[in-house]
Amino acid sequence: MKNFTSVNDVDNLNDWLSLADTFRNNPLHFSEIGRGKTLGLLFLNPSLRTRMSTQKAAYLLGMNVIVMNLDKDGWQLEMEDGAVMNGNAQEHVKEAARVMSQYCDVIGVRSFPGLENREEDYREPVLEALKKYATVPILSLESATRHPLQSFADVITVRNTATKSCPKVVLTWAPHPRRLPQAVPNSFVEWMKLADVELVIANPEGFDLAPEFSSGVTVTHDQQAALTGADFVYAKNWSAYEPYGKTAPELNDWQITAERMALTDNGRFMHCLPVRRNVVVADEVLDGTQSLVIEQAANRVISAQVALYKLLQHG
Amino acid sequence: MKNFTSVNDVDNLNDWLSLADTFRNNPLHFSEIGRGKTLGLLFLNPSLRTRMSTQKAAYLLGMNVIVMNLDKDGWQLEMEDGAVMNGNAQEHVKEAARVMSQYCDVIGVRSFPGLENREEDYREPVLEALKKYATVPILSLESATRHPLQSFADVITVRNTATKSCPKVVLTWAPHPRRLPQAVPNSFVEWMKLADVELVIANPEGFDLAPEFSSGVTVTHDQQAALTGADFVYAKNWSAYEPYGKTAPELNDWQITAERMALTDNGRFMHCLPVRRNVVVADEVLDGTQSLVIEQAANRVISAQVALYKLLQHG
Amino acid sequence: MKNFTSVNDVDNLNDWLSLADTFRNNPLHFSEIGRGKTLGLLFLNPSLRTRMSTQKAAYLLGMNVIVMNLDKDGWQLEMEDGAVMNGNAQEHVKEAARVMSQYCDVIGVRSFPGLENREEDYREPVLEALKKYATVPILSLESATRHPLQSFADVITVRNTATKSCPKVVLTWAPHPRRLPQAVPNSFVEWMKLADVELVIANPEGFDLAPEFSSGVTVTHDQQAALTGADFVYAKNWSAYEPYGKTAPELNDWQITAERMALTDNGRFMHCLPVRRNVVVADEVLDGTQSLVIEQAANRVISAQVALYKLLQHG
Repeated sequence: MKNFTSVNDVDNLNDWLSLADTFRNNPLHFSEIGRGKTLGLLFLNPSLRTRMSTQKAAYLLGMNVIVMNLDKDGWQLEMEDGAVMNGNAQEHVKEAARVMSQYCDVIGVRSFPGLENREEDYREPVLEALKKYATVPILSLESATRHPLQSFADVITVRNTATKSCPKVVLTWAPHPRRLPQAVPNSFVEWMKLADVELVIANPEGFDLAPEFSSGVTVTHDQQAALTGADFVYAKNWSAYEPYGKTAPELNDWQITAERMALTDNGRFMHCLPVRRNVVVADEVLDGTQSLVIEQAANRVISAQVALYKLLQHG
Repeated sequence: MKNFTSVNDVDNLNDWLSLADTFRNNPLHFSEIGRGKTLGLLFLNPSLRTRMSTQKAAYLLGMNVIVMNLDKDGWQLEMEDGAVMNGNAQEHVKEAARVMSQYCDVIGVRSFPGLENREEDYREPVLEALKKYATVPILSLESATRHPLQSFADVITVRNTATKSCPKVVLTWAPHPRRLPQAVPNSFVEWMKLADVELVIANPEGFDLAPEFSSGVTVTHDQQAALTGADFVYAKNWSAYEPYGKTAPELNDWQITAERMALTDNGRFMHCLPVRRNVVVADEVLDGTQSLVIEQAANRVISAQVALYKLLQHG
Repeated sequence: MKNFTSVNDVDNLNDWLSLADTFRNNPLHFSEIGRGKTLGLLFLNPSLRTRMSTQKAAYLLGMNVIVMNLDKDGWQLEMEDGAVMNGNAQEHVKEAARVMSQYCDVIGVRSFPGLENREEDYREPVLEALKKYATVPILSLESATRHPLQSFADVITVRNTATKSCPKVVLTWAPHPRRLPQAVPNSFVEWMKLADVELVIANPEGFDLAPEFSSGVTVTHDQQAALTGADFVYAKNWSAYEPYGKTAPELNDWQITAERMALTDNGRFMHCLPVRRNVVVADEVLDGTQSLVIEQAANRVISAQVALYKLLQHG
């Protein structure tokens, strides 16, 4: 595997899930594979779960970790070819990527979308520039349009928790006070398409995901119908694809409550966290036994461990 | 030991002091006990000594360390049960604590008081929430009302330096341009109560510590009387308990000078650092042979090593 | 070697270059020498290359690393002896240096010049205070007037790339939109004086380096004459020494273009990075095979590894 930035980089999902089992049973399996190797983590945006779980995974594999908080350091990167760099950007991504490739065996990067220019966000300028210019593998720590480490952890969680074959998995939009990226739902959908599940997306009118992700999936604007009989309820807010970045914090009726969960077939509740309590989901659901959010978070270490192992094998 | 947030978590102080001797003689004793284990350090406030000494201690025990600067990252935690999280807080401490427990074997946290609401500060909302929700041990890196890693280092320093049994130890208030917490003096008092010393607190009128800490200790408003015959002089500024947060930077007469030290019985000078030179203490004292401040700082590594060792044993 | 802050700390450059070869051939040579030892990195200014390459070097030697971003943490150090510290500075460099010496086996520090007061900048107050008060070796990560880790990497790069003995090396000023320090060119000159090269400095009138650095070196204000027959072209902007801090971003004619490089004897292009594309140097040069900038960056790891090894030997 050359890079890990979407499900398309996974050759064989069953092989990945089997490796996940290996690490679950023994976190220090392959603890020598990373000896003398360095993971560089580049944060253009804040991170708690991804930062901690990816570091933890690297340590378990014996790697060293170097963290660069570019958002805090005010280190602005130029992305355009041919730019005359007499403005604020101090360094072109060409040099940054090539230089970091001298110091790191894998480069992880987090870069959120601006949510102003859809065409630019979906072009993934930061991620694609790093993939183009780096000479070592690139690991996405959430990009403008995808969050593959989260989605793989979600697949692991569903697989380990499902009590029937081909469970019904409902991805439902939920309200939120801020404008959020589409990365988590996009990514969740493209991974679940490969898992052995019945996937349904429920979102308000005007909040359909980009066609490249939602095509082939049942989409409904009736949350209650979608939840009926569900085995897994994955709640997440996202801003609109069209008009790009639109929000609807007033749609409180889309909050996941105990009443809504009662429509499911003893369904389990999932969310990638951080979550706004009593906005996205009611306390009663998050604090109940049906909640899987901590298992999801725990699986982030395993998800990162598998991805790093695969990248190190290539290196 | 489940957590380390105050002297009350110490089962047997002599056992701790003996372990401190072990680490002093051989810093790499037990250097394998932390293999594959991770210490998460959560800073809601700045830190130099605590950050460096605790990391150093963790490395000496073979642990990995993950640092989260929550103050810089603007990651605001919600503390209230039942809150409708449509404001600035992105994540409830319930999730944060449980999630970090998946990634860390011990969670260290620094959280200063606001110094506006005494009742809230003394309730220790951040520390108590972490203790309540985390499923791994919590290590205080200084909380709103206590700084146990500092105080244990201070006990070690007094014990290693005392030339007589039951030395006279004077904790004296000193002037400072800013409003400071009561954590260091509170904690110093509760640890010294367990050590074999004669403890006296000297502070201006209106600066008595909270009764829960000062009860049973001789308190005087006459610094010179207190210093007479002292073996150890521990200087520290703190803002008032009543009215809460009041300061008195104009009380320059409380500065520790060579003249004041001359009242002691060849007394040694102590301070937790950082210290305002020529405000809290005169250069002549800090630069003289009676100063123990660097020994105190060095003992911070040993203090953290003992605490981490005890927490890992529980884990 | 007690500290590493300039070429004057190098006893024998050939010995250093031979050690560089050792690490190039086997990065994990001496990988046990740093076991149980800690490198503290103190950043008073931002850093990408130096931060990553020095960490990488420390890890390769088996050291642990603790990073302190003093610029971000707002931890202001008092530098003046005898200061009454009732202002913003929280801690005197005396205590900071002595305390960090308890936690670190080597202290690296980055501190840029203010570019307002030449006499103060050239006195190197931060670096000199740390050298004076620390009890462990100090490693310069770029100070107000020098950048020795970069310059040693540059010497390694020239040595490994030269195809003739005593190659012609031209350090040329280049335009830049901001006011930059003189640290890189100062340092480059003092290291190249010791290497077996023919050194020429080309800069506009009014941009001569400090006499203590440029004395004994050919200086010309005719860039084209200097470049004629050059084997290495080292481009770099610097602000003026006299009047101190003056800039000349309008001198676009000093940009290194393919046309200028055509004057050389198949010369190689060097720059310490980060570089402003199409301001300092044209894309066509930086993207061509004559560019050595990535090799220079790679040699930063080796440069730091040699310096750390030498400092650990002293320790």
